Amino acid sequence: MSKGLPKRAEDYSGWYNELVKKADLAENSPVRGSMVIKPYGFSIWENMQSALDTMFKETGHSNAYFPLFIPKSYLSKEAAHVEGFAKECAVVTHYRLKNDPDGKGLIVDPDAKLEEELIVRPTSETVIWSSYKNWIQSYRDLPLLINQWANVVRWEMRTRFFLRTSEFLWQEGHTAHETRKEAEEETLRMLNVYAKFAEEFMAVPVLKGVKTENERFAGAVDTYCIEALMQDGKVLQAGTSHFLGQNFAKAFDVQFATKEGGLDYVWGTSWGVSTRLIGGLIMTHSDDKGLVLPPKLAPIQVVIVPIVRDKEQYNAIGEKAESIMKELRARGILVKYDDRDTHKPGWKFAEYELKGVPIRLAIGPRDLENNTVEIARRDTLTKELVKNEQLGEYLESMLHDIQKNLFDRALKFREEHTTKVDSYDAFKEVLDTKGGIVMAHWDGTTETELKIKEETKATIRAILLDGEDEPGKCIYSGKPSSKRVVFARSY
Amino acid sequence: MSKGLPKRAEDYSGWYNELVKKADLAENSPVRGSMVIKPYGFSIWENMQSALDTMFKETGHSNAYFPLFIPKSYLSKEAAHVEGFAKECAVVTHYRLKNDPDGKGLIVDPDAKLEEELIVRPTSETVIWSSYKNWIQSYRDLPLLINQWANVVRWEMRTRFFLRTSEFLWQEGHTAHETRKEAEEETLRMLNVYAKFAEEFMAVPVLKGVKTENERFAGAVDTYCIEALMQDGKVLQAGTSHFLGQNFAKAFDVQFATKEGGLDYVWGTSWGVSTRLIGGLIMTHSDDKGLVLPPKLAPIQVVIVPIVRDKEQYNAIGEKAESIMKELRARGILVKYDDRDTHKPGWKFAEYELKGVPIRLAIGPRDLENNTVEIARRDTLTKELVKNEQLGEYLESMLHDIQKNLFDRALKFREEHTTKVDSYDAFKEVLDTKGGIVMAHWDGTTETELKIKEETKATIRAILLDGEDEPGKCIYSGKPSSKRVVFARSY
Repeated sequence: MSKGLPKRAEDYSGWYNELVKKADLAENSPVRGSMVIKPYGFSIWENMQSALDTMFKETGHSNAYFPLFIPKSYLSKEAAHVEGFAKECAVVTHYRLKNDPDGKGLIVDPDAKLEEELIVRPTSETVIWSSYKNWIQSYRDLPLLINQWANVVRWEMRTRFFLRTSEFLWQEGHTAHETRKEAEEETLRMLNVYAKFAEEFMAVPVLKGVKTENERFAGAVDTYCIEALMQDGKVLQAGTSHFLGQNFAKAFDVQFATKEGGLDYVWGTSWGVSTRLIGGLIMTHSDDKGLVLPPKLAPIQVVIVPIVRDKEQYNAIGEKAESIMKELRARGILVKYDDRDTHKPGWKFAEYELKGVPIRLAIGPRDLENNTVEIARRDTLTKELVKNEQLGEYLESMLHDIQKNLFDRALKFREEHTTKVDSYDAFKEVLDTKGGIVMAHWDGTTETELKIKEETKATIRAILLDGEDEPGKCIYSGKPSSKRVVFARSY
Repeated sequence: MSKGLPKRAEDYSGWYNELVKKADLAENSPVRGSMVIKPYGFSIWENMQSALDTMFKETGHSNAYFPLFIPKSYLSKEAAHVEGFAKECAVVTHYRLKNDPDGKGLIVDPDAKLEEELIVRPTSETVIWSSYKNWIQSYRDLPLLINQWANVVRWEMRTRFFLRTSEFLWQEGHTAHETRKEAEEETLRMLNVYAKFAEEFMAVPVLKGVKTENERFAGAVDTYCIEALMQDGKVLQAGTSHFLGQNFAKAFDVQFATKEGGLDYVWGTSWGVSTRLIGGLIMTHSDDKGLVLPPKLAPIQVVIVPIVRDKEQYNAIGEKAESIMKELRARGILVKYDDRDTHKPGWKFAEYELKGVPIRLAIGPRDLENNTVEIARRDTLTKELVKNEQLGEYLESMLHDIQKNLFDRALKFREEHTTKVDSYDAFKEVLDTKGGIVMAHWDGTTETELKIKEETKATIRAILLDGEDEPGKCIYSGKPSSKRVVFARSY
């Protein structure tokens, strides 16, 4: 129920947290920093997984599974990588519990200490590249195109549902190639897969770009990203694709016999998206009444609510609902009939608004007489009474409309919240008033980037791949710049 | 290649290990006790997941996700449960690494010690029931039918691919019900789902039964199981379904308002199957030449190998292969055309035999002239030359035949290796010579069960659900018994 949901304009963060809980997406768990993904939230993830997995397979990738635990020494093999992850690792040190001899309950058995500690994977480059060493001997073994669906752990002190939790679910692609060019192409191919998924399935417009050195993945040569603007003017990193160069091949000594008869290190990529996408989905489309879900990812696309006073009406409406469901299911539409007699229609209306079901149908006794149904659209909150003829086609087309409308609306919002500025004062003012994306010139140094971050909390989210060249001066240092970059405050 | 595969009759265990590695199903990982599931092996698991997930949803279950880590104190809440799992727990004690001040590399940061240790889930009853306490208030919230696909860790000193690894993949269903009767029905419903999956998809005949008290899941009132006979005469527990009574409801204080206005503890079940099923699949059907996969779970159902001498033939055969593939794909058959010029046909034949592809087609120049293809069946190792007409229908029907033949063959093997005995001497002799399942009378006591186990390594695998009543005398104690039970040595 939307009752008790804070308004976005008053408390965006409170609105988000309450919405996640009230819409039955997730809840806090007894384990600090971990959450429970409830069935309704998990079914959105299943829909995301299904669409992404199909796209990965269409681009030639196979799934596999690598160990959860990584020996501490493996993590250390790539210097930048360990530097990036050492501070947030869950460490397994023992493999047994026992009863305290002093009767104080269950304790860790000191005799069951591991010789080498195991790290719960924060990402799997190290354990995967140690396998690739055995899998790759010759150019015939390349390219190696593997993906893994898995849970990972990065210890977090301050967490938020979906956006930042110590354990999260994700997929991680890890590929190996003969040449630098092929690996770079793969990095961009997967970035484009992510962008397509975000825009076509999530209805979330994204900017495609490359990260600055400072924001790069630990161990990568280049990190590419998709970034999306949220309703509160902050930007969310929605997915990353890394060109690893030969860094991990060298760290794990993965060499291959080339076509020409030589020996060379392979070129690598890795790329991932996570349950964080669900947070981005919520914050792009939803409103003060609750979730708004794009039809392509909604667990229920159409819900039918009967408006009845007595048993007889119940049966007649039930028959009509059955025939509508049959028609919709034949078109592949996910439909639910909620005929519970424990809740009133008004309660159900609010419930499905809260849960973001794209279309709600209401059928009452008068509709039976007139052969009509009432259709309510979740995205526009509009209602209309339509004749029952060709309802399937009508609703199928409406679902397409809703999908498109959500994307268009989000794109318009982003365009309205993208500002070019040419001075540091204007930069700060835009951030503090209007928020959103600020396109500004930067001198290319980490020093300037960090100063700006320190003073304004804004970071460089991306250097756009399709950004136009435009000579100018850095807003901070005044030094020359060849193109504007994307600044924003971010999640 | 089957070259180097030990013969089953000479070294069953060596045959199994080599087969898993050579058929690219899995390999050892640098983490002791964990394995890497390679793409070919993982695609079998994906096919299993897909079939099972559909069956779970058809029986009303939804997926969700609960935390990997369980606070130590949670594990202790159900006395029998902790007793069963404490000795094999991976324990997280710290959440950060740091550089050793003495320059000895990366060490666990002593300042980052957790106040309460976290256990990597060996199974999720405790963390899930602690959530159920919040989810269940009234009979309206019941039944609660949840499943989770997850990785779990049970520390093992001696491991075997798929059958016993410290980390494994599984699904775990956890349900809550108003009445004892409903929970018992659910326990049996899911046991039947497992049996149906094993027999119809895996082509593995299973015995359905209930475990003795000694073999029961830690925390259950009753454990039901499906058990399958392997080729070496040992039995594999392939899946379990537990009736938990009110044990976990009481441990986590999960009470609900009844329809009658009272307050009662809910009734629970849990049930799971794991990647262990892949081990059972291998050991039921495969032979000295390699894997034999049932068509319903095979990643590739039909492979086409061209037999060519020059480029021109290549193109003509390629066209024919394309048209066959099109026809087969239209029937939903998973087909692969292996036109690599880096390997000879003979090598490919051995490779696909090793990998258990149910049907292999070979097409040579003479086949083009005569409009024929050579069809080789993996299960019977027979070949035939057939006309190219109605090939799709012919192969579809052959895949059905193979699926059925594998089941029938395994059932016949089990029947031939099931022996009734009426004395302890005969019991021991059958175990040591013929092996397999021994149906014998038992007096119902744990004492006798453990004595027999100690002396013969045979355990009671199950008390059959559909076993006939037949008064007799315990083979060990001579005390009266009302029915025979299933004894066997097991994995």
